[in-house]
Amino acid sequence: MFKKQPTILVYHSNQAEVFAEYIRQFGLSSTILTASNPEEAERQLENTEVILGWKFPTYLLKQPIASSVQWFQSTGAGIDDLIADKTIPEHVMVTRIVDQFGSYISEYVFSFLLYIIKDMQRMRKSQMDRSWDPFISESLEGKTIGVAGLGSIGSEVVQKARAFDMRVFGLSFSSKHALLVDHHFTPDKWKEFVCELDYLVLTLPLTDSTRYVMNRDMLMAMKEDACLINVGRGALINENDLAAVMESGHLKAAILDVFEIEPLPKDHQFYSLQNIYLTSHLSGPSTVEGVSRFFVENVKKYMNHEPLQGLVDRSLGY
Amino acid sequence: MFKKQPTILVYHSNQAEVFAEYIRQFGLSSTILTASNPEEAERQLENTEVILGWKFPTYLLKQPIASSVQWFQSTGAGIDDLIADKTIPEHVMVTRIVDQFGSYISEYVFSFLLYIIKDMQRMRKSQMDRSWDPFISESLEGKTIGVAGLGSIGSEVVQKARAFDMRVFGLSFSSKHALLVDHHFTPDKWKEFVCELDYLVLTLPLTDSTRYVMNRDMLMAMKEDACLINVGRGALINENDLAAVMESGHLKAAILDVFEIEPLPKDHQFYSLQNIYLTSHLSGPSTVEGVSRFFVENVKKYMNHEPLQGLVDRSLGY
Repeated sequence: MFKKQPTILVYHSNQAEVFAEYIRQFGLSSTILTASNPEEAERQLENTEVILGWKFPTYLLKQPIASSVQWFQSTGAGIDDLIADKTIPEHVMVTRIVDQFGSYISEYVFSFLLYIIKDMQRMRKSQMDRSWDPFISESLEGKTIGVAGLGSIGSEVVQKARAFDMRVFGLSFSSKHALLVDHHFTPDKWKEFVCELDYLVLTLPLTDSTRYVMNRDMLMAMKEDACLINVGRGALINENDLAAVMESGHLKAAILDVFEIEPLPKDHQFYSLQNIYLTSHLSGPSTVEGVSRFFVENVKKYMNHEPLQGLVDRSLGY
Repeated sequence: MFKKQPTILVYHSNQAEVFAEYIRQFGLSSTILTASNPEEAERQLENTEVILGWKFPTYLLKQPIASSVQWFQSTGAGIDDLIADKTIPEHVMVTRIVDQFGSYISEYVFSFLLYIIKDMQRMRKSQMDRSWDPFISESLEGKTIGVAGLGSIGSEVVQKARAFDMRVFGLSFSSKHALLVDHHFTPDKWKEFVCELDYLVLTLPLTDSTRYVMNRDMLMAMKEDACLINVGRGALINENDLAAVMESGHLKAAILDVFEIEPLPKDHQFYSLQNIYLTSHLSGPSTVEGVSRFFVENVKKYMNHEPLQGLVDRSLGY
């Protein structure tokens, strides 16, 4: 027994129509409504069964007009902002995008690991200066990398680290992927996990138990010449603590793609720190095409009463 | 029946003593002579049985004073300059360093592949400008890489390409490593090999049959937006042809670590080309320690009458 195609509302500040077009192209003949602001969304909610959205005004979901909404699909992998509003009705399923970013994010991670270890900055400068400068750089081989979070993103980082003959540690809440790594740690062993690492890559979701996990104490437990890479969520790190620790000369480098406030304010203290590499939340972009394809597959599962991909356990927060 | 420890001459313009020290440290108690120029070498040759050298004056090997020399170990992987002098007596074995550079050189290759595909130049500039710029870059996943030369260096490039989920083509003279790649080509199929590639990595030795293999004709057979990477020998490429082809807008980028004349002259035309990345023959450095360790292992084989590692077939040129 199949459900009939549900009425879908796409909510996005500037690309709602583009999503809708891809969704039709990928074969759904549902009624597809679009909205780019809360007022438009409110007008479209009656009879909407499924929402595909980014930065959706969650308070609307509590109102009687949203009583037909059964399922909310986020266009991103992280849904901490969405479920921060704990009053979203329990019966509304929340899903996030999974298995789409691993390859892309792990390329980002290794682009910076190699940029730093091979000292590409020096190579580029030598070329500018027309200077012959055959220096010997270090190698990733034999270095120890720790991956915090062993979901689809962390697992891809692990796979590439293997190809570079690195020693691989991992920390995760479940032990499901413990065998991927040379040494697995549970969250009660954070300090033991970080203290031997040359590289720490954060791919964790933001939850009550991961918020500010990288505080002064934890950062100081890392080796002085270690590198910290954050492709998870900004608030995994206490930014003031990181700035202070790095100013004191601890840590060789930090590579940050995510921040507590985004866009990163132009006067943020990070901009004046040495050895910090800042990028604009671009390590794992949701492409409209990729998200639409994922969503359409999920709608088919929904209609067939199959389990949805990326279903969020709201008690865990991911 | 073991040979007694042979008398060794280390020849290097400025590090001969450092090599000698490592060799002793790694357990050889041979007589170890050192020389840093042709005159010193000539004085030391009598009774020398084994030479470890870099840019050795090969004409000395033909003289009666060198009649005791049985084996020449180069400190590098490429020995084209050494065997260009075809009058070196046939009975002198020539060996080169093998299996030491693969990991290091493949890191170099992927540092540039990622630098370009992720557009790190744009990321770095956005940071300098304090500009929030969440652009979407391309991915190596699914791209086609061709590795010319499937020895210990090429094989490592292949292994890393696998971890990045690339399609991998290979060209080599023997079919020994054909199974490493998705599609193997022999040297009579160069054009078929290059025409589909997004990346072409040259790891070949320089021989009569590889010299200038990348001429205008072959470069034009590559895709317009392909990248060329040379970590083999400068003269694999006709440099004038490459400059002309790139000036015409063909090829997306060239990454060159080796040149026909090194150091690369400051007025070389490459310096004024766009999209060309020049480094100073540093992708696979011979470290004194690594080379000394390799050499000592080879001396033990020599004394035990076992086959030497890296023995050069002078008819093939590598």
